[in-house]
Amino acid sequence: MTTIDIDRPLLEQNDSDAAALRRRFDRQRVFVVNLMSSPGSGKTALLEATLRHLLASGRPAAALVGDLATDNDARRLARSGAPVQQLVTGQACHLEAKRIEQALAGWNLEGLEFLFIENVGNLVCPAEFDLGEARRVVLLSVTEGEDKPLKYPPIFLAADAVLLTKIDLAAAVEFDRPAATAAVQAVAPQATLLTTSVREPGGADGWFQWLLTERSRWLAATSPASPLRPDAHSHE
Amino acid sequence: MTTIDIDRPLLEQNDSDAAALRRRFDRQRVFVVNLMSSPGSGKTALLEATLRHLLASGRPAAALVGDLATDNDARRLARSGAPVQQLVTGQACHLEAKRIEQALAGWNLEGLEFLFIENVGNLVCPAEFDLGEARRVVLLSVTEGEDKPLKYPPIFLAADAVLLTKIDLAAAVEFDRPAATAAVQAVAPQATLLTTSVREPGGADGWFQWLLTERSRWLAATSPASPLRPDAHSHE
Repeated sequence: MTTIDIDRPLLEQNDSDAAALRRRFDRQRVFVVNLMSSPGSGKTALLEATLRHLLASGRPAAALVGDLATDNDARRLARSGAPVQQLVTGQACHLEAKRIEQALAGWNLEGLEFLFIENVGNLVCPAEFDLGEARRVVLLSVTEGEDKPLKYPPIFLAADAVLLTKIDLAAAVEFDRPAATAAVQAVAPQATLLTTSVREPGGADGWFQWLLTERSRWLAATSPASPLRPDAHSHE
Repeated sequence: MTTIDIDRPLLEQNDSDAAALRRRFDRQRVFVVNLMSSPGSGKTALLEATLRHLLASGRPAAALVGDLATDNDARRLARSGAPVQQLVTGQACHLEAKRIEQALAGWNLEGLEFLFIENVGNLVCPAEFDLGEARRVVLLSVTEGEDKPLKYPPIFLAADAVLLTKIDLAAAVEFDRPAATAAVQAVAPQATLLTTSVREPGGADGWFQWLLTERSRWLAATSPASPLRPDAHSHE
């Protein structure tokens, strides 16, 4: 089978574009999170709740959202009051760094604490495309089946966190949580495993806390004075 | 954005391979159904129930099942007693006709009434790849959200049927059925809209009936004597 998603020159160009984006995000102190999942795993619902929570906490946040067609998600997310831009991809099953760069051309990122990129709903294609993000998060709803990490490993391999979403539906779908946990740990032992529900009060608190903690870590690691920063002594 | 899935020579080669497969299926009177959906929409559960039903009705049926990794689905489907083969695609987000041809190389299709191809779980990539099937079916679970046809139109455009699966969960997820119906009709007016549940007795009867009816229509249309058959007078 031809693996058409692995087009080397395309990926190398994307890696280069993503590296430039990452330098910009580092300089402007914007913590960027790339949200990936199947269609219908609850990315938009969680992101809407997240934007509301962050804005209510006085933390400026914005979002870019990718879909093949429609601006339904951007309109939905804009209800939070956060700046949101829809990226319509036509036939493309993922976002690319160049597209993020173009979308942000007119944006002033100064003062923004969080930028979320809601990728195209797809458990395969987005895996290979670095968008300059600080953290990669994969959502998996309890309605999708426990063995998805085993069946779609590439996207889980580089995840910083895996969110089991719609946990309020676990009983209705007879979700086998130990099996799902084992599948995530087998494929993505590096990832923090969190559960979320946007329908239960406090159901996303662990996720909100993770975002704040990871942003603090990232700020420390990318500080111009940090010994952890790879280019701390460059003059770029 | 580069639309990497639209690689013209690759698609033309696939179309040619698919046409050869379709001639073979026509000659051998095997009704082939290509099942497509997001990961976790319930393709495997519905297919397992379908194979059991057809075999119990004395109708020979078999399945090919695509996944990036594991043979979990093939093992699950084989419990039905039907011949099943797993196609592992590695990084590829869809199946191609050449891969189907290779998988069937050792198979004797004579006497088989139904062959199901469970595509890789993906609501984008499989749309462009003809597999020689007689019918294309897209599954959409009620947990995925009502507007998916609007947001992922290409795969719905050529669907012969759209199945709203896991209908037993409709109340738990506050599924808005009129909105989903309107979205399907807006994008895929040509498709028959069916609901299924593999957890409710008789919950897939409409789907089983559709399969029998469509197979009869296809048999009539592809009969060597049929005036509907495009190549009825060729000597290929």
